[in-house]
Amino acid sequence: MQAGRNIPIDVGRLWERHEQCAALGATPKGGVNRSALSVDDITLHARLAREASGRGFEVLLDDYGNTFFRKPGIEPGLAPVMSGSHSDTQPTGGRFDGIFGVLAAFEALEAIADAGVSHRRPLEAVIWNNEEGSRFRPSAMGSSVYVGNDSLEEMLGSVDDQGCTMAQAVAQLREAIPGAAHRELGAPVHAFVEAHIEQGPVLEREGIPIGVVTGIQGTRKFEVEVLGEEAHAGTTPRANRRDAFVAAVAVVGRLHEIFHDAADEVRFTIGEFIVKPGAMAVVPSRVWFCIDFRHPDNDVLASLGDRVAEAARQGAGRCEVRVSEPTRAGSTIFGDEVPDAIVRAAGDRGHAWRRIYSGAGHDARYMAMHCPTGMVFIPCEKGISHNEAENATASDLAAGAQVLAASLVSLADR
Amino acid sequence: MQAGRNIPIDVGRLWERHEQCAALGATPKGGVNRSALSVDDITLHARLAREASGRGFEVLLDDYGNTFFRKPGIEPGLAPVMSGSHSDTQPTGGRFDGIFGVLAAFEALEAIADAGVSHRRPLEAVIWNNEEGSRFRPSAMGSSVYVGNDSLEEMLGSVDDQGCTMAQAVAQLREAIPGAAHRELGAPVHAFVEAHIEQGPVLEREGIPIGVVTGIQGTRKFEVEVLGEEAHAGTTPRANRRDAFVAAVAVVGRLHEIFHDAADEVRFTIGEFIVKPGAMAVVPSRVWFCIDFRHPDNDVLASLGDRVAEAARQGAGRCEVRVSEPTRAGSTIFGDEVPDAIVRAAGDRGHAWRRIYSGAGHDARYMAMHCPTGMVFIPCEKGISHNEAENATASDLAAGAQVLAASLVSLADR
Repeated sequence: MQAGRNIPIDVGRLWERHEQCAALGATPKGGVNRSALSVDDITLHARLAREASGRGFEVLLDDYGNTFFRKPGIEPGLAPVMSGSHSDTQPTGGRFDGIFGVLAAFEALEAIADAGVSHRRPLEAVIWNNEEGSRFRPSAMGSSVYVGNDSLEEMLGSVDDQGCTMAQAVAQLREAIPGAAHRELGAPVHAFVEAHIEQGPVLEREGIPIGVVTGIQGTRKFEVEVLGEEAHAGTTPRANRRDAFVAAVAVVGRLHEIFHDAADEVRFTIGEFIVKPGAMAVVPSRVWFCIDFRHPDNDVLASLGDRVAEAARQGAGRCEVRVSEPTRAGSTIFGDEVPDAIVRAAGDRGHAWRRIYSGAGHDARYMAMHCPTGMVFIPCEKGISHNEAENATASDLAAGAQVLAASLVSLADR
Repeated sequence: MQAGRNIPIDVGRLWERHEQCAALGATPKGGVNRSALSVDDITLHARLAREASGRGFEVLLDDYGNTFFRKPGIEPGLAPVMSGSHSDTQPTGGRFDGIFGVLAAFEALEAIADAGVSHRRPLEAVIWNNEEGSRFRPSAMGSSVYVGNDSLEEMLGSVDDQGCTMAQAVAQLREAIPGAAHRELGAPVHAFVEAHIEQGPVLEREGIPIGVVTGIQGTRKFEVEVLGEEAHAGTTPRANRRDAFVAAVAVVGRLHEIFHDAADEVRFTIGEFIVKPGAMAVVPSRVWFCIDFRHPDNDVLASLGDRVAEAARQGAGRCEVRVSEPTRAGSTIFGDEVPDAIVRAAGDRGHAWRRIYSGAGHDARYMAMHCPTGMVFIPCEKGISHNEAENATASDLAAGAQVLAASLVSLADR
């Protein structure tokens, strides 16, 4: 553990990399729109791969487009300690969500190399492909495919709005990183640590730079399709209509009633809602929308989520309705090993810390199925995320990277 | 009037032209998607222009892209009798809405020429540009611009979703009809007659082939924009959200209450409803939707329509809301001159007819501001329109064209 004590983080280098990444997909309002394996995202991968090679780190790519940067340890052949997150963003995303976890892991590897600190196990920084799921449908997270929770074949067949498959996008990534070695999906990992902005207001409010994450709340995602019939808006009496929009709004009204809780613990969001054919004078024939439902309690996830289909049927009236559930993940509780390592690393370096629960989903959810896992949170301004106004400070980024580096070395020496 | 009695309609030619036009923008389900001045629509204009020239009809184009085919009369210099409709469709439109009125007018001119029937005034068939308003925003009807009800400059600046202006689209049309003479907007018209499918069930149900239209119900179109704030779906409590979708659904709920009438005479439709940024895990920050409201009674149009803004403000909660009203047109009652001519033409040829009121809007609404105007309706299957299943019979099309031709000649001899 002594070895871990002196790993100076290069604050300027870490901040500069965030700035460079924020330019890839920059929006006029100061945010980032960098969908998974878009040109900007592939540019980001290729740039980090070049820098990794320059530092003597090995670059590896698996069959789903997850990218790994590997710093060898003293004992080759041992399973690595891994850290990282994702580089894709929401359409109106910010400059820190995901990418901080990637760059903190990369900085940790460089800082450990700079300090000449040795470690038994290899250390790896990873960019998980497609965490946000806003381009490829169904959403198909790289960490989930890596640990075997989702089928590689199905997820490579996922298609974006332009008809591009994930398989084609991954092929483009591979062309952009020609020197990458092949990494087996599911290869053993000794421990996984993900650094991330909190995406909530707690750490900032309490003035605490380090959150030691205890678990991730569960989520169920539903897709609802309501089918009616087109008709002329000026001539068709209400009694003769099968208006998919009117039916869908009735379904939404029932859902809002069912999911309303006075305690405000239920997270229920309809973020996409698409009306077709979408013309002023035509009664809509089709509405498609999706539901993002989250709760820390698996019993509540089950009981409320199971009422979606019934609410859809009752609200749809004379329209047809179809409900599917592309994603279901129970709440995750991290074991002690990684959180304890983070607590020690924070304490050793004099950073205030607290335990915290994650409302947002992360790749760590899936890695926890595969190996001991934990997360380091840092504060973000007003808890705002999935928003172009997302912000964080350079010193909090550095504190997070410092605790991460120390945690990785201590885990790698086990 | 004797001259009008023998104008044989070429049923096969009329049907064949409908088939040819239906191929331009044909959809897999047997309907038509031919937006205003799309490649398909311009092809249609150019084809009819060639056929018109071949028949010795003059081709004219005004500054807004309305296209006229002119058969000279005995007395040059008199204002013409005009007939026609539009060639554009809704995105999932049918094979008869609009185009029947264009082709019936064209057939009438040809049949009158074939029969060697003379007439004092010139006769014109017109294709009004952009009646459906589904491509260019704000909707900008050619007849409205022609009669000076809308500003030419503003309407040429209207922009489609791809950023193409109406001015650019009209320039493309002009290139496709290089021989067209220039027609002044607002040039005098002696009378206007528009043939159209009923888009309602009355004529078919009663087995009557000819509807003599007495007027058109009024309409008000509103656009509502609800502005909230993006936030993370997994971490942001309901109390901290400004969810534009939740607010918009509340606004819609209030509107549905206000516009509900037991008599089912109110036509209230929300055909477009767009949610941004449109990502599963992001609380929406913006919803835009439009309202199509119609009623025969101008007092009801005023009293109900004036409640939209108030409902929007009350429903929007903590979100911002903006309401605009791009279109407002009171109910139109046609004078006697043209309807009487249609009644005589139908009676002389032994076609059953009835007076009928139009629930749908038509170019005739605007022409009625400019000159004596009327409409001939024919039945359509089950009253279905703005739907790919829209249908009509060849014999009803021919009956409509026959009554139209006789009406035009009688009006042109006044």
